[in-house]
Order: sequence, then C-alpha cells, then structure tokens
Amino acid sequence: MSVGVVWMNGELVDAARAAIGVYDRGFLLGDGLFETMRAYGGRVFALGAHLERLRRGAERIGLPLPDGLADAVRATVAANGLADAAVRLTASRGPGDGLAPPEAPAPTVVITARPYRPDPAWHERGIRAALARGRLDEHRATAGLKALGYLEAVVAVAEARAAGCDDALFLDTAGHLAEAAASNLFVVVDDEVLTPPLSCGVLPGITRAAVLRLAARRGWTALERELAPEALARATEAFLTSSLREIVPLVEVAGRAVGTGRPGPVARALLADYRDLTRDGSEEGGTDDR
Amino acid sequence: MSVGVVWMNGELVDAARAAIGVYDRGFLLGDGLFETMRAYGGRVFALGAHLERLRRGAERIGLPLPDGLADAVRATVAANGLADAAVRLTASRGPGDGLAPPEAPAPTVVITARPYRPDPAWHERGIRAALARGRLDEHRATAGLKALGYLEAVVAVAEARAAGCDDALFLDTAGHLAEAAASNLFVVVDDEVLTPPLSCGVLPGITRAAVLRLAARRGWTALERELAPEALARATEAFLTSSLREIVPLVEVAGRAVGTGRPGPVARALLADYRDLTRDGSEEGGTDDR
Repeated sequence: MSVGVVWMNGELVDAARAAIGVYDRGFLLGDGLFETMRAYGGRVFALGAHLERLRRGAERIGLPLPDGLADAVRATVAANGLADAAVRLTASRGPGDGLAPPEAPAPTVVITARPYRPDPAWHERGIRAALARGRLDEHRATAGLKALGYLEAVVAVAEARAAGCDDALFLDTAGHLAEAAASNLFVVVDDEVLTPPLSCGVLPGITRAAVLRLAARRGWTALERELAPEALARATEAFLTSSLREIVPLVEVAGRAVGTGRPGPVARALLADYRDLTRDGSEEGGTDDR
Repeated sequence: MSVGVVWMNGELVDAARAAIGVYDRGFLLGDGLFETMRAYGGRVFALGAHLERLRRGAERIGLPLPDGLADAVRATVAANGLADAAVRLTASRGPGDGLAPPEAPAPTVVITARPYRPDPAWHERGIRAALARGRLDEHRATAGLKALGYLEAVVAVAEARAAGCDDALFLDTAGHLAEAAASNLFVVVDDEVLTPPLSCGVLPGITRAAVLRLAARRGWTALERELAPEALARATEAFLTSSLREIVPLVEVAGRAVGTGRPGPVARALLADYRDLTRDGSEEGGTDDR
C-alpha cells in the first residue's frame, strides 16, 4: 500500500515517507473532506466536477483550500506512471487542539493514486446488499458532504460482509431509501430511472449526476424521488453508482431479489454510455482549477 | 502544539517526529476511537473507566487493541513531566484501502499529553450554548461510541461561536435534549438531577456516571430521563460534564436564561464533590489494564 509517490502540501514525496502529524485534525476529529476519482488512460475523469464539489464542501465547513489542485492531481497520477487508477484527495483542517476550528488553519492536503480496475464480476453478476442497522441522518449539518468520518459506513460494510453480502444500504431517518455505504442508489420502477433526492442526506455523486444526464439523453424519464423501501419490491432493476465502481447492478437487498435477480438492460445500457464518456475525454475538466 | 513526547505504537517519541502514515484509516475514514482524560497532580483520573469504555467500543467495531495501555498512558504523562494535563488516546484501525476493514488490521495507537487547566470563568460565570442545526442520530450503529468523526460537532461549535455562544447543544432525531458538542447534559427540574438516557445516542460519559453517583451520595434524586427542550424552561439549573471541563454551569441556551441565568448551587456542590474525588486518588484505576 505504501508504494509510489504521494502529493502532500505542494510536494511529491515518497509514499513511505509521507506522513501526517499526530495533531492533525483529520486524524483526531475527522475534520476534513475527501474526493475519490478514477483515471482512465492516465486522465482523471470529471476532475473539474470533483474539485468543484470539494470547494463547495470546504466553503460550508470553513476549510481554506490551496490553488492548483487540478495540476496536483494530474501530477500525482503522472508521477506514479498510472493509466487506470483510483485517485484520492484528502483535505483536513491541519493541526489543532480542541473542537473549535483554529482561527488560521493550515490545511493538510494529500493526494494518492494507485492502480485500479474494478472486479468484472460486479458488473457481470451484480452485487448484494444488506440493510444497514444504522440510518443515514438527513438532518445533520454536514449532510451531503464527503466528510472524513466514515466509521458508520465501515461498520455497515463489515456487518454486511459478515452476512455474506457485498455492501450495505442505508435508509434515512424518515425511512426512505438513501444510499449504499459509498455509492448512490438508483431503482427502475415503471420504466422510470429514480434516485433519492439530496434531501434524504445522500452524497451529490458525480457519477449519479452523469447517470441522470445519460438516462435523459436516451430519452428515458430520470428523476430524483423519495422512495419507500417497498419500491425495491416493485423495481425491475436497481444499481449503485460511484466513481470507482461506475454503475453496478444491485441484484439483491436483504435477501430478496431485485427484479429478476440478475443484471438488467437499463444498468447495462447506462454503463456502456458511461464508459463511452470516460473514454472520450470531454468530461476531464478541471482546467480552470478555481 | 508539536511539543513534548508522544507514545506511539509502543514507543515514546518526540512529538515533532511522531507521524501517521497517509494510508492510516484514522486519517482517511475516521476509522477509530479515542478517549480524553485528565491528569491531576500527575495521576490520570478514572483511567480504568476510560480504558474499559475504549475496549468496549473497540469490541463493537472489531478493532483489536494492544495490552499495556494503562502503563502507556502513565508513561506519557510522566515523560512530559506533567502534573495537570489533558491526555488523549487515539486508536485507529491502521493502514488500509477501501471501506471494508482489513482482515488483519495493524492498529495505530497514539497517546498525547499537554498541560491543561480549565478556564476558571467557565465555572464562575457558566457558559452559553446555541442549539445545533444538526441532530444527534440515536439510530446510528456507532451511537454512544467516541468515534473519530467529529466534523458535525466541529461545525456546530464553529456556528455557536459565530453566534456569540460557547458551545452547541444537540437534540436527537426524535427531538429530545441529547448532549453538547463534547459534553453530557444535566438539568435540575423539581429538585431532580436529570440527564438524557443512552437511548438518545449520547456518549456514556465517565464524568456523567461520576455525577450520577455523587448526586445519589448526597441523597438527591439523580436519574436518566428523556427530556423535551421545554425542560430547559422549567429547569432551575443546567450543567455540562466532561473529563476536561468537569462540571460547567450552562446558564443560557439559544438566547434564553436557564434558571436565574447564573451558576447554581447543585452544579457548585457537585463540582466540589467531583474535585474531592479527583484529589483522593481512589478512582485512578487502570491497574489491571485488561
């Protein structure tokens, strides 16, 4: 894991020597945000959209970010000689004691990249989810932020794995379908492609937005809608979206098959469209880097 | 901040050189737990209770902890030559990619200690809290754990400070009074000393437990009870408890005075009792260190 080169606060350094101070608020308090991206053929897909989301989140929590992050992400991928990669940018509020943010924070920004190809079985056979014991809290002030504190999701995935599943599906506190541990959820009901709205506390996923656009481009009805868990029983398909996994059929939830219990045509078509998008370079973005 | 000596994975090292790897799950995912303790005259108060809570939490999330942590905490305080100190033990699941915990985690344990004395104004004048915008989610699988992900509390405190307050008070998602950003809440209503039950998602505070015992020792009625926010209007006093702050009068919430708007006799008496406890050494604990 500690291989290759890491970008850290303006410098490319050997991963084994890159280190976070023990007083970093990212480590002490999860006080920071992150982005996970994918590079295809050496180019980071939707880099501009990821950095824009990061900047919006940083503004909400009062975290000052340095300029030049798009170049930094590209430099990290290039320095590791990677074509197909998972790229992560982590930005914490830097060193500081106590809960209240320091008046003049000195953020810590780390960018890592590692070789990445998704398991083909995900797309060919689909994945199975357990229902998470906990709920996604749509009322939190940090709702929709890709904040560092993922323990609830870690526990949910560990419990799902122990139950023989691949992932965990969260309801919000009102009982609506929300999202998986680190992916957005879509269901296909009555030929409509539906995903829970941001008011359910879900992450405004970059892939989620791309899928809504791609479905509309095919002339399909694609909407945000609050969904009761019963929607899964009526769905002909369901799938999960994230930058790393792209579009993965969700064939079973809590022991019950979704639709036929096998990957369906909507997920297959959208995955093909999405992969075209990742190949054509038009969504690379991030050139302005404001 | 980066002064003194830090205990890290079995060794005392210079704080400036102590560092966390960039792939540590504590930094990447808030995948870990912590304890905050106070040392009085060089002795860590309620060390055994803190380590016991840490071990229970670690068991819940499947985090293996090393033995010898009580000695490690004592060694850290001693190595820094501290008498009155804030001590923090942070335990993360160590390095690892992806959400699912590694099969054989190599946890990172860091213990820091710094000189600490509370601001006397807290106890003399009391503090003021704003109501947090977010809710404390009593339904999460990690409810009651002192998990690393504190961004929601950081944001709440930052917003409270911006509104001229000292702290933020959270309701749970059902609308009950829950706890402050990093302290438990007590209210005194009809001569009863009341604190929200753990079912409201609050931390099982070590100081909270001590206060319940001390109040009972005085012959007072001291109980866990679900409390509507209106309880604050009827309360003659309210106070917050934590290892660092001990017992701090809460004299105003959301712009409304609690009781007379000044520190009251119940908080004063319990603080005196609590300080006796911190002086007599009987609750030092942690000798067995299982």
